[in-house]
Amino acid sequence: MAKDLTSREADYSQWYNELVMKADLAEHSSVRGCMVIKPYGYSIWEKMQAVLDKKFKDTGHSNAYFPLFIPKSFLSKEADHVEGFAKECAVVTHYRLKNDPENGGVVVDPDAKLEEELIVRPTSETIIWNTYKGWIQSYRDLPILVNQWANVVRWEMRTRLFLRTAEFLWQEGHTAHATAEEAIAETEQMLDVYADFVENWMALPVVKGRKTPNERFAGALDTYCIEALMQDGKALQAGTSHFLGQNFAKAFDVKFTGKDGKLDYVWATSWGVSTRLMGALVMAHSDDDGLVLPPKLAPIQVVVVPIYKSDEEADKISAVVNSLKKELEAKGISVKYDNRDTQRPGFKFAEWELKGVPVRIAIGARDLENQTVEVARRDTKEKMVLQMNDLANKIENLLEEIQDNIYKKAQAFRGDNITKVDTYEEFKKVLETKAGFVSAHWDGTDETEQRIKEETKATIRCIPLDNPLEDGKCILTGNPSTQRVLFAIAY
Amino acid sequence: MAKDLTSREADYSQWYNELVMKADLAEHSSVRGCMVIKPYGYSIWEKMQAVLDKKFKDTGHSNAYFPLFIPKSFLSKEADHVEGFAKECAVVTHYRLKNDPENGGVVVDPDAKLEEELIVRPTSETIIWNTYKGWIQSYRDLPILVNQWANVVRWEMRTRLFLRTAEFLWQEGHTAHATAEEAIAETEQMLDVYADFVENWMALPVVKGRKTPNERFAGALDTYCIEALMQDGKALQAGTSHFLGQNFAKAFDVKFTGKDGKLDYVWATSWGVSTRLMGALVMAHSDDDGLVLPPKLAPIQVVVVPIYKSDEEADKISAVVNSLKKELEAKGISVKYDNRDTQRPGFKFAEWELKGVPVRIAIGARDLENQTVEVARRDTKEKMVLQMNDLANKIENLLEEIQDNIYKKAQAFRGDNITKVDTYEEFKKVLETKAGFVSAHWDGTDETEQRIKEETKATIRCIPLDNPLEDGKCILTGNPSTQRVLFAIAY
Ligand SMILES: [Zn+2]
Ligand SMILES: [Zn+2]
Repeated sequence: MAKDLTSREADYSQWYNELVMKADLAEHSSVRGCMVIKPYGYSIWEKMQAVLDKKFKDTGHSNAYFPLFIPKSFLSKEADHVEGFAKECAVVTHYRLKNDPENGGVVVDPDAKLEEELIVRPTSETIIWNTYKGWIQSYRDLPILVNQWANVVRWEMRTRLFLRTAEFLWQEGHTAHATAEEAIAETEQMLDVYADFVENWMALPVVKGRKTPNERFAGALDTYCIEALMQDGKALQAGTSHFLGQNFAKAFDVKFTGKDGKLDYVWATSWGVSTRLMGALVMAHSDDDGLVLPPKLAPIQVVVVPIYKSDEEADKISAVVNSLKKELEAKGISVKYDNRDTQRPGFKFAEWELKGVPVRIAIGARDLENQTVEVARRDTKEKMVLQMNDLANKIENLLEEIQDNIYKKAQAFRGDNITKVDTYEEFKKVLETKAGFVSAHWDGTDETEQRIKEETKATIRCIPLDNPLEDGKCILTGNPSTQRVLFAIAY
Repeated sequence: MAKDLTSREADYSQWYNELVMKADLAEHSSVRGCMVIKPYGYSIWEKMQAVLDKKFKDTGHSNAYFPLFIPKSFLSKEADHVEGFAKECAVVTHYRLKNDPENGGVVVDPDAKLEEELIVRPTSETIIWNTYKGWIQSYRDLPILVNQWANVVRWEMRTRLFLRTAEFLWQEGHTAHATAEEAIAETEQMLDVYADFVENWMALPVVKGRKTPNERFAGALDTYCIEALMQDGKALQAGTSHFLGQNFAKAFDVKFTGKDGKLDYVWATSWGVSTRLMGALVMAHSDDDGLVLPPKLAPIQVVVVPIYKSDEEADKISAVVNSLKKELEAKGISVKYDNRDTQRPGFKFAEWELKGVPVRIAIGARDLENQTVEVARRDTKEKMVLQMNDLANKIENLLEEIQDNIYKKAQAFRGDNITKVDTYEEFKKVLETKAGFVSAHWDGTDETEQRIKEETKATIRCIPLDNPLEDGKCILTGNPSTQRVLFAIAY
């Protein structure tokens, strides 16, 4: 167990908070609810961004940038949006400070009051559809496939690093289409992009599904999501993709002339993932010794620690390491040679373990004689002695194996934690004892969903896309149901 | 001349505004002073970001992210900073909206007033140094070499796309060092990084220099800058790098224990470039037909337009183009095959000219017979017929030649527009007739600088780094001076 790190068993929530800070991922700032993403944490986010950005571009999207501020009146234009969307927003009311002649420092200049307040964007559908109005006249202008990487603000009262912060970073895709079919296909495509990313880069299996009407995004006709399971048995929504129908086009009067010459409203989608994924990455794989990072997202994939007693030994080791480093880097593997002379090897081992570096290589004088190195895997903690010959290839294969293994472990865990229940008693018992996803029949009404949520805190995470039809009875009301849905207590 | 584009001679300022919009770079949003950066414009910014980001990382910096909001009291902590920095800031005073029962829509909830107002960051020195306090105890924690890519807001009253907007995108580097020497070396290094980028990627020559005390960043002991010349003879500050001394460390009480065990305040730098560079790029090279983009920053480097009369011809041309496209892409050259059947070749030629694509290739049936293509350069408008054999290499060389040529043209223009003057009469005459940089003696006082600015609108852009010492007399006061400084009317 890492020094001073609370264990998962003792307090999972505390373990998470400590780990995020001790591993130098993020910390609380002096601004309530806003975090500082530290360089090590940010470098993981940059890797996530690079992979996602390439996937967006490969599927035909371009990036653009829209204003941080949204006129207050815009939020009122789409009725469901304003009704359903949380009202906890940062509101800009003034545009100037002035020197305070009495107390020094600055005060807000009361003469500089805005005529209309501006809202710091909590999401950008309104400002973007107001912009699209000017971009779209005919079917030739469609589709518009645009993404934005941006910061957004939602004034959360209870915040946790990465999982729920007032300001967070995200990407929001906003597309415009000539037909409903095309918009739905886009919505589904982007869900697949997210699932592919989370499974194959974050090494985290997800359930793809649709939200119930009650859990949909405000203004959406349909919300697709991917849901992942954390080690404490709670679910985490890792990404959403919304089919918005013509709601925003109607609210902002965005029409196009079709090939047939007829005017119609434009069809819309939006989709997003955020720095919340950082929280999911930490919670899904890490252990009581620190982070466990999947190699594909680890900023440092291999760390090399020299073990020496004299300068002469150190020099000999460095010569070998530098050549190994070059070989690994030629394969696109990122390597850190930790030759600090201010710290002992044991300290370094613990530090890189805490930071989740997938492979650690130690080399001492004896190794040089034997032409070997000691290799330690972060995921399984296994150590092995490997011959130096062909080492770069062996490390490359090992990294792939680690990526696979982390995924399989998470997959096995999830497999063990999807429980089918047929009664409300069982349902409550599973939630209390083992949590995880609970697969149960539901009568399809808002009322039942709400009552279950009130009584158990469990929400319907999704109706899985590949759900088999199956006759059954609602666990709460006994009313007939045609399929099971996935419940869980969620982040 | 491009359709509907005002010429530079008729109205340079209008030409610029129209070009930015017609070339799909950016447009005004519904939020006063905030722009929308459109996909084509944003793709140029992304190329700039990628190059700069690599240069920052190659010089040892990491990215991180700090809060969008700054507590109002922070701005008062560094006396020069608060005194000198513009007070036009967006101020957040409330954190919640609520439904308006009377008029529908939403209103600001008066019960949700913040105890302390938050300022949307106009720059992040204060919040970052408040954070660094927690990161720095000993010399072992130094240097901190951090950069942030972010949006910032300064409530400008008169705005112009890219050049001056209320919200803009930028990067801000913030470094912390154990010694003044190291911080000064960092300040100078980052100025060199900027100059290298602007000259070798943007193809725009710059003067490296230092600001006068009067033009320094608020809180800096020394401000270095790079200054470029636009086609209308106005100067544009393209980047700044500040040596902040210990001012922010003192304001936020950031001390470190040195190797000698003594406590001292930390030394700081900050440096930044912004989407303003997009404005410089447009204004420096473009002409009355549209954008002229240097190949190294052009999102599309080569456009291929087929010229055909039948489907059969079109198919034959496409086969040839697809193979050429692959060859070019294998060299890292971005190619757009514009085979839209909804537009005529002449329309396409004008469109890609407007958008500044460096090389246009046209292929018709006759070309297929002759194994030739028609190649047009955007920078010189020259056309040539080239044999298809070895074409990819020829295009690669041509792109390099265009990059060089654009730089040399800007360099020659600047050479013609640095004028040495020795009297105030000459000074004023040059400003009125040809503008550009005016090299003149100045007595070194704030008063003289201010009076010249009031009377002529010209400011001291910088004291060039490589300035030769030379005895002379101030053009305004006749007082002795030891060197010339560069004046100009600036954006
Ligand atoms: Zn906390
Ligand atoms: Zn305007």
